[in-house]
Amino acid sequence: MPPNPPAVLVFAASDPVCGAGLQADILTLSALGCQPLTVVTALTAQDTTGVEAVLPVAADFVRQQLHCLAADIAIAAIKVGLLGNADHARIAADAAMKLKVPLVLDPVLASGRGDKLADESLREALLAILLPHTELITPNIPEAYALFPEMPPDAPLPQLAQRMIARGARHVLITGAHAPTPEVINTLYSAEGKIRADHWPRLANSYHGSGCTLASAVAAFLARGYDMEAAVYEAQCYVSQTLRHAHHPGRGQAIPNRLFALPLP
Amino acid sequence: MPPNPPAVLVFAASDPVCGAGLQADILTLSALGCQPLTVVTALTAQDTTGVEAVLPVAADFVRQQLHCLAADIAIAAIKVGLLGNADHARIAADAAMKLKVPLVLDPVLASGRGDKLADESLREALLAILLPHTELITPNIPEAYALFPEMPPDAPLPQLAQRMIARGARHVLITGAHAPTPEVINTLYSAEGKIRADHWPRLANSYHGSGCTLASAVAAFLARGYDMEAAVYEAQCYVSQTLRHAHHPGRGQAIPNRLFALPLP
Repeated sequence: MPPNPPAVLVFAASDPVCGAGLQADILTLSALGCQPLTVVTALTAQDTTGVEAVLPVAADFVRQQLHCLAADIAIAAIKVGLLGNADHARIAADAAMKLKVPLVLDPVLASGRGDKLADESLREALLAILLPHTELITPNIPEAYALFPEMPPDAPLPQLAQRMIARGARHVLITGAHAPTPEVINTLYSAEGKIRADHWPRLANSYHGSGCTLASAVAAFLARGYDMEAAVYEAQCYVSQTLRHAHHPGRGQAIPNRLFALPLP
Repeated sequence: MPPNPPAVLVFAASDPVCGAGLQADILTLSALGCQPLTVVTALTAQDTTGVEAVLPVAADFVRQQLHCLAADIAIAAIKVGLLGNADHARIAADAAMKLKVPLVLDPVLASGRGDKLADESLREALLAILLPHTELITPNIPEAYALFPEMPPDAPLPQLAQRMIARGARHVLITGAHAPTPEVINTLYSAEGKIRADHWPRLANSYHGSGCTLASAVAAFLARGYDMEAAVYEAQCYVSQTLRHAHHPGRGQAIPNRLFALPLP
């Protein structure tokens, strides 16, 4: 048998469309040479145009899924997507503490389309409980502002990034698809300030699951031993390819093509 | 954008290990050039050694997941894996009737490792409600016997196959990994009798998710327009490769490598 790929533990919700959520994570991690392990935090009913319903999973069952996996398989990194409630944030934080592996947090407070997916207690739990165990947080611009409703709506992004770092995150990647810039600019920060900014062509479509794909791709490269700056750059290159090769199966957003490199029929 | 891949609707449970269940379906369908759409029927907690808990999803939420997808995306085939209860069988049968596309049924009554996953009412519902809408059912040998507890334990496989056909299935593929033969022999039947038998080398390992992978692969080839005999043969070739390239992440069964064709790092 070939050597085992590094395993990446995912906390995420199900997206039946397979654009975002744990479905996106599974495809991304597998395509990038990792073994996904998925703890389901919530179920959703949705299509390519919007989210119709969200059903959080009981915290005890989230814990049970995790315990089975952690007792059986060596885990190299953790990726956290949509959580059902504040209890789930505590379970993910405990996992990061016990496993002592990097955690990448995609702070899903609303879908990329604006559907609200989290309440106030979950926002507070992300900041107070999960950020101290977070190696990288990957908000888009609306999420960066939503994390700090007390900040003025014209607060500069570097200031928001330093707020997240003050709450415990070691690195912050703010993605710029929602900015009015001609190119998409994604900026990586640490406590020392800006580490790098990458510019990408702005694509014509709207995509369902690009944020999940990016955060999972960074987790994959960290699990494979890349340092943070290299992992963030390689992950962006990968996402850019998945978007350029996206499909358009429904009436709404396009879906990233996570296996664009496969020789298709 | 490239042309859209055909969409395959899956009814399945979550397997956190990503060896079986909807995780296996997503990888298989994507690798074979299809767009997966996943209706979650149950959550499980398990590792590579066994199933610890199964949590069925409420029938209303199964229906809601389905309705979102069917209203948005053209569906080319259906694959049914583990169902949580008899109500789910009715929902899947209704979908096959309305969508008028081939349905492939993997009759999961126990896991490949023997964990019991279905009760008597679900067995009856598979036979009475789902088989009349089934283009292909793909039992392994223990599942073929478990479908008909009234049959003697030495009933020949062709007789079991004809029972399934008498209940409405158009084709039956009985897989032979559990038989004491030197090679694994998988046999495809229709009302006219045996259509073909394929022989495969018996591998040393035990695999978690080979049945899910096979049924999804057949659904993928049917969605892409292959006829039944070709779809069944191509699917077996694919599964054979995923098993030969399997990984062994935990203490128990190996996991098929659904993306073996990807150039890995």
